[in-house]
Amino acid sequence: MLIRAMSKRKSHPPAGRSGRPENRPQPPAPRQGGRDLWIYGRHAALAAVANPARTIRRIVVTEGNQGDLAGIQRRDGLPRPETLDRRALDGLLPRDAVHQGIAVLAAPLPDLSVAQVAEAAAARGAATVLVLDQASDPHNIGAVLRSAAAFGAAAVIMQDRHAPEATGAVAKAASGALETVPLVHATNLSRALDELKQAGFWCLGFDGDAQTTLAEADLSGRVALVLGAEGAGLRRLVKEHCDVLVRIPIARAMESLNLSNAAAVALYESARRLTTN
Amino acid sequence: MLIRAMSKRKSHPPAGRSGRPENRPQPPAPRQGGRDLWIYGRHAALAAVANPARTIRRIVVTEGNQGDLAGIQRRDGLPRPETLDRRALDGLLPRDAVHQGIAVLAAPLPDLSVAQVAEAAAARGAATVLVLDQASDPHNIGAVLRSAAAFGAAAVIMQDRHAPEATGAVAKAASGALETVPLVHATNLSRALDELKQAGFWCLGFDGDAQTTLAEADLSGRVALVLGAEGAGLRRLVKEHCDVLVRIPIARAMESLNLSNAAAVALYESARRLTTN
Repeated sequence: MLIRAMSKRKSHPPAGRSGRPENRPQPPAPRQGGRDLWIYGRHAALAAVANPARTIRRIVVTEGNQGDLAGIQRRDGLPRPETLDRRALDGLLPRDAVHQGIAVLAAPLPDLSVAQVAEAAAARGAATVLVLDQASDPHNIGAVLRSAAAFGAAAVIMQDRHAPEATGAVAKAASGALETVPLVHATNLSRALDELKQAGFWCLGFDGDAQTTLAEADLSGRVALVLGAEGAGLRRLVKEHCDVLVRIPIARAMESLNLSNAAAVALYESARRLTTN
Repeated sequence: MLIRAMSKRKSHPPAGRSGRPENRPQPPAPRQGGRDLWIYGRHAALAAVANPARTIRRIVVTEGNQGDLAGIQRRDGLPRPETLDRRALDGLLPRDAVHQGIAVLAAPLPDLSVAQVAEAAAARGAATVLVLDQASDPHNIGAVLRSAAAFGAAAVIMQDRHAPEATGAVAKAASGALETVPLVHATNLSRALDELKQAGFWCLGFDGDAQTTLAEADLSGRVALVLGAEGAGLRRLVKEHCDVLVRIPIARAMESLNLSNAAAVALYESARRLTTN
């Protein structure tokens, strides 16, 4: 009931929720290994090559696809492209990887913490971040990144556990967006939401049973759009750490939207309001 | 220029475009074979079983998943469920099919023509149909169907050529929506748009270079939302058969949205306007 009682805000909430001990910003999550990953597919591979923050170990194209590399900006430290036949490239990548004749072996991007995202956003009046609770499908996560880039979101934050590493499948589905939108892993999503709130973010949890619709919700200033897994929705604790619950109105016959579709709708509405209000 | 000049409409256009011979409604597209298909995954399989229009040949569950069938409505002609072990079920389905321990062998649904969709919509003041130009990825098409069902669209229309049959992969991604939203195959998409216009549909083509944004577009009454393939966009002829071109405003760095995400945004905006205007 607290959540619904808070559903009409007049201004941004103060740092931290009243009556609760303030959580300190959490340190960047420790990452295991930081293994190199293969990034494949035209958009994804070329975006990685073009990203100065991305260390590239190998660039591999198949015969006839060398032209794909013509337009890329040369930068220091790029390895010389290798030409392989299709079967050899297939052999380097996961089974069924749709590589379109190009792949790069790359180091993971530097980790960013929730605190760093919040700090960067503090300088801007308006900012949108997406928070994914228990997302696990790399195609969905990649598609969410792509929409996040398209609608100008500042970051996508997800839980460390359950979440796959930023794999080639995520990068492929993101169609280059993995290079432009930070994908942040948080150890504890509830604490991440507290950190965001302390940084002036209004946290909207998406819940099919919410009374407030997305169209009615306050989306001004800094907002965090918090989406749960399809079907299961947000976990109770994550829900309780949101400032307000909202729903995308859908037909009763359908239980939920596909995660990336729900994220696209939420991001669109947030961007639309920013433009028209 | 004709298209942009027409971008502000005051009322629904008359039947047919002025100065053009009227196309007669096309007969239902002939379908080859009408082969049975395996529909797998909990939502998709149970929705097929629950759909009285769907002829079911076999119902197969794995050991331990018989409980999934407990809630389904018994109806005439349903075969007795068979219990198989996981490997046997794997063997019936396409490689890597995520079946969640349940699958049904079903006859395809009766074909519906564009004319029939238009006729059914004529009885309603407002109706939304989605038209997909050269969509080919079954996951995307399934996700579009799911959003179409969620936002109450009357049908999804796609080209016969290029479009995959309503396969198990489409049904799985549609999460049951294949049973509730007609998936209509048209031989010629430009003629289908003409038929829709004759039936009072306002046809909005989605184009990244359009001047009008989705938020500015007239979405009242009967509308057809026409989306092209990712990257390539709408073909010229299809574009010319639209009443107006609109765009979803996205960052320049991203070429396009994922098809199903663009469809979800278009459907959301259409449904939102219907509710709030």
